[in-house]
Amino acid sequence: MKTVSVAFLLLGVGLWQARSAQADEGMWTFDNPPTERLSKEYRFKPTEQWLEHVRLSAVRFNDGGSGAFVSAEGLVLTNHHVAFGQLQKMSTPERDYIKNGFFARKPSQEIKCPDLEINQLISMENVTERVTRALTAKQERQRNEQRKAEISRIEKESTDSTGLRSDVVELYEGGEYWLYRYKKFTDVRIVAAPEQQAAFFGGDPDNFTFPRYDLDFAFFRVYENGKPLRSKHYLRFRPEGLREGDLTFVVGHPGRTDRLETARQLVYQLDIAMPTRLEQYRRRREALVEYSKLGPEQERRAKDRLFAFENSIKAMAGELEGLREWGTTERMKKEKEFRAALAKRQDLRGYASAIDRLAKASDLARARASNAYRHNNIFAARLASFANTIARLVAELEKPNDKRYAEFRESALDSLKHRLFSPAPIYPDMEERMIFEALQESLEKLGPGDPYVKLALQGRTPQAQAKYLVSGTKLADPAERKRLIEGGSKAVAMSTDPLIVWARSLDPSYRAQRKEYEDEIEAVMTAEGNRLARARFALYGKTMYPDATFTLRLSYGRVAGYDQGTTKVPWKTTFWGLFERSAAFDNKPPFDLPPHVAAARRKIRYGTALNFVTTNDIIGGNSGSPVVDRNGNYVGLIFDGNIQSLGWQYAFDETQSRAVAVHAAGIVEALCNIYDMPDLVRELFAR
Amino acid sequence: MKTVSVAFLLLGVGLWQARSAQADEGMWTFDNPPTERLSKEYRFKPTEQWLEHVRLSAVRFNDGGSGAFVSAEGLVLTNHHVAFGQLQKMSTPERDYIKNGFFARKPSQEIKCPDLEINQLISMENVTERVTRALTAKQERQRNEQRKAEISRIEKESTDSTGLRSDVVELYEGGEYWLYRYKKFTDVRIVAAPEQQAAFFGGDPDNFTFPRYDLDFAFFRVYENGKPLRSKHYLRFRPEGLREGDLTFVVGHPGRTDRLETARQLVYQLDIAMPTRLEQYRRRREALVEYSKLGPEQERRAKDRLFAFENSIKAMAGELEGLREWGTTERMKKEKEFRAALAKRQDLRGYASAIDRLAKASDLARARASNAYRHNNIFAARLASFANTIARLVAELEKPNDKRYAEFRESALDSLKHRLFSPAPIYPDMEERMIFEALQESLEKLGPGDPYVKLALQGRTPQAQAKYLVSGTKLADPAERKRLIEGGSKAVAMSTDPLIVWARSLDPSYRAQRKEYEDEIEAVMTAEGNRLARARFALYGKTMYPDATFTLRLSYGRVAGYDQGTTKVPWKTTFWGLFERSAAFDNKPPFDLPPHVAAARRKIRYGTALNFVTTNDIIGGNSGSPVVDRNGNYVGLIFDGNIQSLGWQYAFDETQSRAVAVHAAGIVEALCNIYDMPDLVRELFAR
Repeated sequence: MKTVSVAFLLLGVGLWQARSAQADEGMWTFDNPPTERLSKEYRFKPTEQWLEHVRLSAVRFNDGGSGAFVSAEGLVLTNHHVAFGQLQKMSTPERDYIKNGFFARKPSQEIKCPDLEINQLISMENVTERVTRALTAKQERQRNEQRKAEISRIEKESTDSTGLRSDVVELYEGGEYWLYRYKKFTDVRIVAAPEQQAAFFGGDPDNFTFPRYDLDFAFFRVYENGKPLRSKHYLRFRPEGLREGDLTFVVGHPGRTDRLETARQLVYQLDIAMPTRLEQYRRRREALVEYSKLGPEQERRAKDRLFAFENSIKAMAGELEGLREWGTTERMKKEKEFRAALAKRQDLRGYASAIDRLAKASDLARARASNAYRHNNIFAARLASFANTIARLVAELEKPNDKRYAEFRESALDSLKHRLFSPAPIYPDMEERMIFEALQESLEKLGPGDPYVKLALQGRTPQAQAKYLVSGTKLADPAERKRLIEGGSKAVAMSTDPLIVWARSLDPSYRAQRKEYEDEIEAVMTAEGNRLARARFALYGKTMYPDATFTLRLSYGRVAGYDQGTTKVPWKTTFWGLFERSAAFDNKPPFDLPPHVAAARRKIRYGTALNFVTTNDIIGGNSGSPVVDRNGNYVGLIFDGNIQSLGWQYAFDETQSRAVAVHAAGIVEALCNIYDMPDLVRELFAR
Repeated sequence: MKTVSVAFLLLGVGLWQARSAQADEGMWTFDNPPTERLSKEYRFKPTEQWLEHVRLSAVRFNDGGSGAFVSAEGLVLTNHHVAFGQLQKMSTPERDYIKNGFFARKPSQEIKCPDLEINQLISMENVTERVTRALTAKQERQRNEQRKAEISRIEKESTDSTGLRSDVVELYEGGEYWLYRYKKFTDVRIVAAPEQQAAFFGGDPDNFTFPRYDLDFAFFRVYENGKPLRSKHYLRFRPEGLREGDLTFVVGHPGRTDRLETARQLVYQLDIAMPTRLEQYRRRREALVEYSKLGPEQERRAKDRLFAFENSIKAMAGELEGLREWGTTERMKKEKEFRAALAKRQDLRGYASAIDRLAKASDLARARASNAYRHNNIFAARLASFANTIARLVAELEKPNDKRYAEFRESALDSLKHRLFSPAPIYPDMEERMIFEALQESLEKLGPGDPYVKLALQGRTPQAQAKYLVSGTKLADPAERKRLIEGGSKAVAMSTDPLIVWARSLDPSYRAQRKEYEDEIEAVMTAEGNRLARARFALYGKTMYPDATFTLRLSYGRVAGYDQGTTKVPWKTTFWGLFERSAAFDNKPPFDLPPHVAAARRKIRYGTALNFVTTNDIIGGNSGSPVVDRNGNYVGLIFDGNIQSLGWQYAFDETQSRAVAVHAAGIVEALCNIYDMPDLVRELFAR
C-alpha cells in the first residue's frame, strides 16, 4: 500500500544515476514516452490520441495519490486508502464510514468531501530556456534565488492568464523545467467505499505483501457548478480477459524516487536520514497506539493517522532493507563507469567535480542531522501545523510573489487555503498528545540547553506545554483560522492565542534553519545536480526518464507472477483466497472476514480475479493509478507494491519486485454481489 | 516432502555438538524420553503405558519412511509419497494408480505390494557393555573389525533365538549400542491412495513450502497368515479440536542428522560432499527429464525416480542454504566452548585431541573426493545395482557372518532378498539411459586414463557400453536374479550375462575403495567420535538425544504459525486455499485441480483444515509419522518440513522452521466427500 511519504518535502533532491534504463523500467513523462522500447519489446506504438486520452483520463489527488475518470459523468476511481482521510473527516461516532463503508445508491446520497482537491493535467510546456536565461549571477546562492524568482513569475503569469493551477516542475535534477497546467476540482463527492476491513484485509502484516486479497477501491464523483462533470476523457472498464504476460500501463503520479543520487548521498540516506525518520515515525506510532487505548472513540479518531504511520514505517523499513540488499556497491560501480565515460570526453571531463561537490553537501547535511529534531511538530500534529503555517503565510504574503517560499506562491495559495479552511473535525486531546510527543522528542534528543528546545518549551515540561498550547487555542475552528489569515500579519501579531504566539516565536528559528539548508545544501545540490544532468544528456541523450516528482508519468510493464524462496507466486488472486486467508487464521483480526463479504458468501463467484501483479515501475503517490491495457481500457487499480518493490525508490529491478493492483473484475464482482451497487456498475459499462 | 536421502549410506558418521538442547528440540529415544522438559514446558508427564502405546502403534517403512497403525484391523496410515514406489510398481499403462489413485472399497480389492516391508519396534536392549568388552585390540583398524564382528554376533544370536529382525544400533556416535528387535511384515496391501495430483498438489515449486494444500496420505493394511492383522496398539483418530499452541508429538524414524559434527567436518560437507552430490543428482534428473520427453509412457515410467531426485535436490539445496546461513561460525563457537569445558577438567583434558584427529580424517575424505565418481551407478540404475549387489552378495555369503559387510549379514538377508526378488517391472530403455549417464559422468570427471573408468567402459564409449550391458542382460527377470543367488559364487563366476561379467570385474575395485574408507576414515571417525561421546556424557550426562539413525524417535512440539518476510504464515490451511492456489495459477500444472477434487467441488466443506505446521523436530525418514496429541490420539500426518527446516539436518531452530502435516480432519473430509470411502472412515472411528 502506497501513499506519498509524509516526509515528501523534507529532504534534498536526488541527483544520480548513470545506468541505462532496462527491462520494464521507467516513469516516463508524457512529452517523452518510451515509444522505441514499446515498439521493440511489445510491438506497440502509442498514438498521440492514445497518449492524450490516458493523460486526460488521469487525475491527481492533491494530498497524495492518483486516480482516473471512469465514466462520462465525472466518476473517479481511486484507492480506499487515498479516500481514507476524507472518509475519516466525514465520519462521526454514530456514522462511521471507515468501519461500515459508504454507499450512495442515488445521486442525492453523494456527500461532498470537506477538503479534497483533484487535479487534471491539461498541458505541459518546456520552459527550460526561460529559466536558464534568468540565471545571470555567478554565485550559486544568488543563482538559486534567481531560479526561484523566475519560476514564481512563470507560474503567476500562467495562473493569471489561464486561471489554471500552474506549477513549474524541475525534471532531470534541473536538466529541464516544465510548466504544468492543471484543471482543479474541489467539489468532489464520495460515491462508494467498502468497509476498511475489506479494503485493508490482512492489515499491517499483509501490507506490501503479495498474494493479497484487498478491495482497496473508492469511487468519487467530480462536480462542476453543482452538477456532475461531463468528463470527455475517461477509461472504459474491461474486467475480463487479462492474462499473464499482457502489456500494461500505469498512468499516475509517483511521488519521489532517488535513483540518480550519488553513492555518498545514498550512504547518507542509509546511515542517517532514513533511520532517523524511521525512529521518529515509530515514536509517533507509539503515541497514537497509547492514545487509541483510551477507548473505542479514541481508536476511531486515531485510525487514519495510525494507518498512515504504520504504512510509512513498513515502507521505510522495506526501503532500508532494499538499500542494504544491493548496498552501495552497485551504485559505486555505476558511478565509476560514469566517471570513466566523462574522462574520455574532453568537453565533459570537468563535470566529474560535481560528484565531489555533491559529496561535500551530503557531508554537511550529515553534520546537521540533529535539525530533524527541530520544528518537528509537522508529523501528525495538525493544530501545531496550522499555527506555524498561518504565522509563516501572513509574513510571506507581504513579500513579492517571486521571493516567497514555493509553497506560499500565488499559484499554490488556493490549494493551501482549501486545506487550511477545512471543516474536518479536530480532536484536541489527540492533538495535545502529538504535540507533547514532538516536544518530548526534541528535549530528549537535543537536551534542555538547546536554543530551539528553550523556545519550544517556554520553560514548561513537554506535557505541560502541550496542554497549555492546546487548551487555550481557538484554531480548531476553521473560522478563526480564516479570520487570522484575512487579518494578515497584523491580526497574527496581535493574537494572544497561545499556539499563534508560540508559532510566532518559533518562526525566525525555522527561517534561519531553512535558509542555511537552502543556501549551503540545496543550492549546491541543484547547481551540481544540474551540471551532472547536462553531462548525462551529453553522454546518453534524452533516453532516460527523470526521477519521480509527483507529476504525471506513464510506466509500462506486463502482468507477471514471480519466484519467491523456492516456490512460485501467482500473477493473481481470487476470492477463494480471501476466504482461505481468513479461515487459516481462524477469522481473527486483521484476517476477519469483512461484514459485507461474510454476508454475501453464498453469492460471491469465488473464482473471480481479485488482485494481481505487474512489472510496472511505480512508487508511493501511484496509489489509485489506473492499470490500462494497450487499447486504453481500465483493467486494474494500483494500490500497493510488494515488499521487494520498495527498493524501487533507489533502483528498478523486476526479479521479484511488483506493483500490486485490484483487478477490474474484482471491483465489478464486489459492486454486484457484495455491495449491491448495480447502478454504479451500469454507469461503468455505459457506452 | 521428506524421504530418507538417496545418499543415506554414503557418508561417514557425524560427531559433534556441545550445545545443550533447547526449545522444542530433540529426536528422543524411547529409553530416554524428555520427561523433565515436557513436565516443565508443557505440564505433561508421559506414562510408561503412554510411551509403550505410541511406540507399538508406530511402524517403519523399510525403504524409507514412517507410519502408524490406525485401526484394530491392521490399517496403516502413511504418506502417498512413501507409498509412491509401491503404487508405481503395481501400475501399468492401462491401470495407472499414480495418475488415478487407488481405492479398495472392499477387502477383496486390496492388492498386495510387490516388495514392501514394514517393521514394528518390539523391544530395545542396551548392549553397550558387551560391544565395548569385545574391543581388546590396540589398533583402531582392528578395533573397528572387532566391533563389527561383535555386532554381527549379537544380531545373529537374537535373530536365531527370537525370529525377530534384530539390528544393533549405534547411538551417540558410539557412546551407546542398542539391540533393536522388530516384528517384520511383508504381506502389506494397498487400501487407498489419492491421485498423485492431490497428494502432491503444487508439485516441485510447493515442495518444502508452507502454506500447503496436499492430501499426501495412503492407507495400507498389514496381513498376517492371509488375514488382516489384529493390531492391539493403534492410534485413535481425532480430526477435530486442534488449536494453535497445542502440544504435539511426532513418533517416527528420522533418517539422519549431523548435529554433532565438528566444524571441520561441516566445512567439508559444505565445500565438497554436498555440492558434489547435488551436481550428481542434477545430472540424473536431467537424464530422466530427457527420457521422459520420449513419450507419455516414458514419462509415466520415470515419474517416481524423477520425483525422488527433484525432492532430494530441493532438500539438499535447502540444507546447503541452511548451512550457509548460519555458516560454521556458530559451530566453531560451540566447539571452542566445548574445548574450554574439557580443559577445565583434568580427567577429560586428553579428549580434545579427538577433535583434531577428526579434522584429519575429514581432510583425508576431502583428498579422496573424486571417489564420488567411482562406483556411481548406484543412483537410479536398478539393473546395475542388481548386478553389483549379486556379485558382492555371493562372495560375502562365503564369509563367516561377522566378517561380512553389514548389509549382507544374516539379520539383513531377508529384507535384502525381498528387494532383490521384487517382481516390480524393469524398463530396459530407462536403465540404459541411467547407466549411460553414470558412465559418462565418470569419464568426464576422472578422464579416460583412470583405472576405474577403464574397467567400467571396457574400451567402449559410455553410450555403447550402456547399450551393450543392458541389451544382453537377463537380470530384468527376477527368476534369473534368484537363480544366480541360489547358485552362489559358482553360478555368478560362470555367468556370461554382460552385466554380471561387468559387475565381477568392478568388484575388487569397489572393495579396495571401501576398505580404504573404512580403515582410514570410518575407523577414526568411530573411535574418535566415541571418545568425544564419552567426554560429552561425562560433562553433560545423558541430557541429550543422539543424532538420527532411522530408528524410532519421539519428538515434542506445538502447533504454531510463524512470521515470514514482513507478514504472517498461519498455522493451518483449509480447502479454500486449495481452490485459491489452483485458480490463481489458472488451473495450470502443477496447480491443476486433482480430478476427484474438481468433481467434488460442490460437496467439499471448504473451511475444513487441510494441512498444518508444528515445531516438532523431524528430518527425512519422518515422512508418514503420526502427529499425536497428549492423549495419544491421531491428529495429523507428517509429510514435509518447510524449506527453513532443512537446516535441521545440522541444528535445530524454531524461528521459522516447521514440520508440515496433513490435518486429520482433512483426511476424513477427503475420504467422506472426495473419494467416497465411508467404510474406511467407519473403521477409523470404530471403538
